[in-house]
Amino acid sequence: MLEEQAALLVDHAHCEKKAAGTALNLIFRYPQHGFLHAPLSRLAREELSHFEQVLRLLASRGLRFGAQRPSAYAGRLRRSIRTHEPARLLDTLLCCALIEARSCERFQLLSEATSDAELRSFYAGLLACEARHQGIYVALACELVPAGEGRARLAELAHEEARVLASVPPLPRMHA
Amino acid sequence: MLEEQAALLVDHAHCEKKAAGTALNLIFRYPQHGFLHAPLSRLAREELSHFEQVLRLLASRGLRFGAQRPSAYAGRLRRSIRTHEPARLLDTLLCCALIEARSCERFQLLSEATSDAELRSFYAGLLACEARHQGIYVALACELVPAGEGRARLAELAHEEARVLASVPPLPRMHA
Repeated sequence: MLEEQAALLVDHAHCEKKAAGTALNLIFRYPQHGFLHAPLSRLAREELSHFEQVLRLLASRGLRFGAQRPSAYAGRLRRSIRTHEPARLLDTLLCCALIEARSCERFQLLSEATSDAELRSFYAGLLACEARHQGIYVALACELVPAGEGRARLAELAHEEARVLASVPPLPRMHA
Repeated sequence: MLEEQAALLVDHAHCEKKAAGTALNLIFRYPQHGFLHAPLSRLAREELSHFEQVLRLLASRGLRFGAQRPSAYAGRLRRSIRTHEPARLLDTLLCCALIEARSCERFQLLSEATSDAELRSFYAGLLACEARHQGIYVALACELVPAGEGRARLAELAHEEARVLASVPPLPRMHA
């Protein structure tokens, strides 16, 4: 059980790092889309700050951050991203919104399930951020295409996400 | 002249973004090197915050951020990075230190040369950060290898950097 908690914390650190990396990659990939840059830069800074918080939590518990096999969730979800523009950017933003929403749900479940007061308060504190990040990604998607089109594609991808979640092997990971 | 100033500001934004990207890439590439993670995450957050500052400066002047041909400086300097570990990581950290030191020098020159009070104060404010970042990269290099070895390699790379700088075509860029 403690081993699973450790694995979950390491996975959490990786997730925060990857969330920052994804936001920064979008800034690199789309220099022409000014509406993305400042919001995604602020979002990446916040994810990095969470990454540092998880690193401190790990260190305070004598646990080591390191390479770890990730959950298949995000990789499988990303297979739904279309390869032509602007569909590619739209789908990427919407997948990011779904991942943030799923993280939000998982922090809620974890904060309710754990008997560790420090973790409970930590997870509960992150809930609001993930919900806000989800909103940012949806809002950016709706700057790219009309809101109706964005919402319709979000519903399709959410359907696909449900299929992916049902297929992910059980592991002590945030999204498994 | 105003056109050159605009090109320089756009290049500056790209440099801050790339500095954040390099720090984050190092965290991704070396999950086993715990000593890198928190310092480079904090550094990346600071670079992103500078990126956002340059974006605001551009916007307030009615200038657009967008794709731009970079100076050949960093790319040529990076050719000196050896490909086997731990030399690759050592050289990367030391090249980052050199780039930060060169940025520091350029901000000093720019802050002295410009008659624009807002830019003068902006560049002068960034000086201290770049000097601190240089120190962070050198300190990280010296966690990887004995300090003497790190300093010796830094001197070699500085020699190479001088050669690179002399070869870079003149463009309105931070490092040209």
